[in-house]
Amino acid sequence: MRIVIVGFQSAGLTAAATARLYNREAEITVIERRTYATYHPCGLPFVIGGEVATLQDLVEAMPRLQGVEVRLGAEARSINTEEKTVTVLDLRTVREEKIPYDRLILATGSRALKPPIPGVDLDHVFTLRTIEDGERILAALPRAKRAVVVGAGPIGVETASALKERGLEVTLVEMLPDVLPGMLDPDMAEIVAERLVKSGIRVICSRAVKEIRGKGSVSSVVLEGEELSADMVVIAVGVKPEIELAVKAGLALGPTRAIAVDDHLRTSEPDIFAIGDCAEARCFITGRPIRSQLATTAIRMGRVAGINAAGGDETFEGVLNAVVTMASGLEIASAGLTAGAAKEAGIEAVSARVRCFSKPHYFPGAEPVTIKLVAERRGQRLLGGQVIGAGAALRVNTLALAVKRQMTAKELSKIDYCYAPPVSESIDPLVVAAEALRRRR
Amino acid sequence: MRIVIVGFQSAGLTAAATARLYNREAEITVIERRTYATYHPCGLPFVIGGEVATLQDLVEAMPRLQGVEVRLGAEARSINTEEKTVTVLDLRTVREEKIPYDRLILATGSRALKPPIPGVDLDHVFTLRTIEDGERILAALPRAKRAVVVGAGPIGVETASALKERGLEVTLVEMLPDVLPGMLDPDMAEIVAERLVKSGIRVICSRAVKEIRGKGSVSSVVLEGEELSADMVVIAVGVKPEIELAVKAGLALGPTRAIAVDDHLRTSEPDIFAIGDCAEARCFITGRPIRSQLATTAIRMGRVAGINAAGGDETFEGVLNAVVTMASGLEIASAGLTAGAAKEAGIEAVSARVRCFSKPHYFPGAEPVTIKLVAERRGQRLLGGQVIGAGAALRVNTLALAVKRQMTAKELSKIDYCYAPPVSESIDPLVVAAEALRRRR
Repeated sequence: MRIVIVGFQSAGLTAAATARLYNREAEITVIERRTYATYHPCGLPFVIGGEVATLQDLVEAMPRLQGVEVRLGAEARSINTEEKTVTVLDLRTVREEKIPYDRLILATGSRALKPPIPGVDLDHVFTLRTIEDGERILAALPRAKRAVVVGAGPIGVETASALKERGLEVTLVEMLPDVLPGMLDPDMAEIVAERLVKSGIRVICSRAVKEIRGKGSVSSVVLEGEELSADMVVIAVGVKPEIELAVKAGLALGPTRAIAVDDHLRTSEPDIFAIGDCAEARCFITGRPIRSQLATTAIRMGRVAGINAAGGDETFEGVLNAVVTMASGLEIASAGLTAGAAKEAGIEAVSARVRCFSKPHYFPGAEPVTIKLVAERRGQRLLGGQVIGAGAALRVNTLALAVKRQMTAKELSKIDYCYAPPVSESIDPLVVAAEALRRRR
Repeated sequence: MRIVIVGFQSAGLTAAATARLYNREAEITVIERRTYATYHPCGLPFVIGGEVATLQDLVEAMPRLQGVEVRLGAEARSINTEEKTVTVLDLRTVREEKIPYDRLILATGSRALKPPIPGVDLDHVFTLRTIEDGERILAALPRAKRAVVVGAGPIGVETASALKERGLEVTLVEMLPDVLPGMLDPDMAEIVAERLVKSGIRVICSRAVKEIRGKGSVSSVVLEGEELSADMVVIAVGVKPEIELAVKAGLALGPTRAIAVDDHLRTSEPDIFAIGDCAEARCFITGRPIRSQLATTAIRMGRVAGINAAGGDETFEGVLNAVVTMASGLEIASAGLTAGAAKEAGIEAVSARVRCFSKPHYFPGAEPVTIKLVAERRGQRLLGGQVIGAGAALRVNTLALAVKRQMTAKELSKIDYCYAPPVSESIDPLVVAAEALRRRR
């Protein structure tokens, strides 16, 4: 059994390690264009901000996986699905080679999206996706004074916070009406925007970038009715799946223009799997195809494809897109559908929002925790939730499990939880929120 | 509708507030011997340690619950189940009065257990249950040099840590072979014992206290083969349900000698409910009667009894006894059955233990997290788990939900979770533990 994996980030690495674990005999080959091992793109904003010391900290050591051959600096050029081979170009020797496979796993990832704004190719207009992107931004920092970050998703918010931390004058521009769109409802997003503003970041929503101006290097960003001077711009408007190889091989794409996969993560070619950012996921609640594009989804897909490619039988269920981000020290997490997303999906929903504390009021270090829960109106089956404040990520993990197990607000209000004054409140904030939701009929 | 509640701690207060919420017309009367409102016994060790400034911080302000009459300094002396009255003694005026009820809720709580050790009534031999206990210990602190804490349950461990924090020489004595018995398996308890020892506490397990010696005030504690000099002893060997009133009224007790209740928290008298430490709970997994004696169980029972007494229909399911404690700055939590408890219950179990980090290794502030999961051998349905380290309580909350929803290790290995480097790891420690358990066949 020969398993070939294209791509050596979270998805590819996990698939390789899992396949190894489930099938000791398989020959596993990983093809990766980069010349270094797996790195952590999610850590990039925190190197920019100075919390993590160097970009090199984000690069993993080469894992020792017995019987796994990792070819770095190698590009998969094409797939022959008839003879079941991948043509690989060694980028150093410029030699091509055909590698045969029994099972092929595509983990080609995604690249940062650069929208077709005039001036987007000027110097000092960056994206933040690769180690090289990080190097460029770090090199520009010492002489930068005014930065504009375009896009207020998690990476945009984290990057704006990071640049502010470095002493720059920062403006965060979002085309949609609120920060963290998709992740938060407007009433929750407001709390985040307030925190960003309080930390000194200017936040501009509901306005698109018309043009980026400058001579060689950027000097300003033009919005409707306003021109922001800037010597650095970071574009953080999302990523685009790397699907060229799959398209050339004739693999079917899904409605989101990522590679279509079944519940075993098989593509339209039964011996080819696709995982991570290049593959389409399904929303657990609506069943609709979505682009998940989270490291956690990549890892979870990698495990499933690794098992299946190695001869096992594992399914990948829909995702809740559980996600956490930091905005100027504030922890923000969400999973499942927001009230807005539920409405958009045609689900009649009800929601409740509560503000609690992480510990008893008398205990030093008690911090506010705001929770919004969303449920179906009839029967109050949970659809999702948003948490801002201490322990947001771990609280959303519990909530995501409740949503996944199709629990109702009533059931959530009756869960077992831990209490001790230095750590938690005697009534868990999730329970308080579930109680509030039960009364919202 | 007249609802009378005896006891105004977590259970009684919650029952009163909940009954009020569910029935706006009911007349609600609460009878409480203390002359002040609800206080938080779980906070006491942290006042002793100095983290919480004063004992008064632990006492809640009188809640404003419209139509709820709270009689402080009033003792319920007897119940007449025929005429449905409670005889109440006003401790100030020494006048007795009969209060009629349609529904009666007993939330009489528990008191600290003082085992019949010779010398247990010497001066400076304390328990730590009431505000008055706290006052006595705080008064003794300035002249105390050597303390012995008897019992290494959560309160004992927290009190030992607190006294060490105050600069005393502290010995913690546990009769059973390990600290936090019942809560942790020996392999996990070892981590806690190590931390306690590292912080300078002497930990002695597997030895009983034979005698406490002193003239008037304690001067030493005698174990098998050793005499520990001590000018202060704190006995923390558990609590005993306050059942006198119930017994006098002829209510049935359960096998644990707490008040027997059905799944609506009704006692053997259908119009009388019992909740909190005085009432018996059931283990969710084994179905066996247990004494839960947690504030969280009291609150959860209070809510159910409050709804039912007010005319609603709510059930109380078995408990997992989710619990968290702090040992010299280390967070320790558990829920469900330990491997030891599973064995004792005759369940063939399998377990796995993993050591992870709370954040990526490259991020400052990454802390170790050790997780032990326990599942049935056949089918790997989860039975419980133990977590030591950062976020232990919130991680156990997720785990408790997984156990409650009867999930398997495989299902837990596939949950949705949040990841961002400043907050969490790309593979959640619970998932790592569940994966390890899946491989343990």
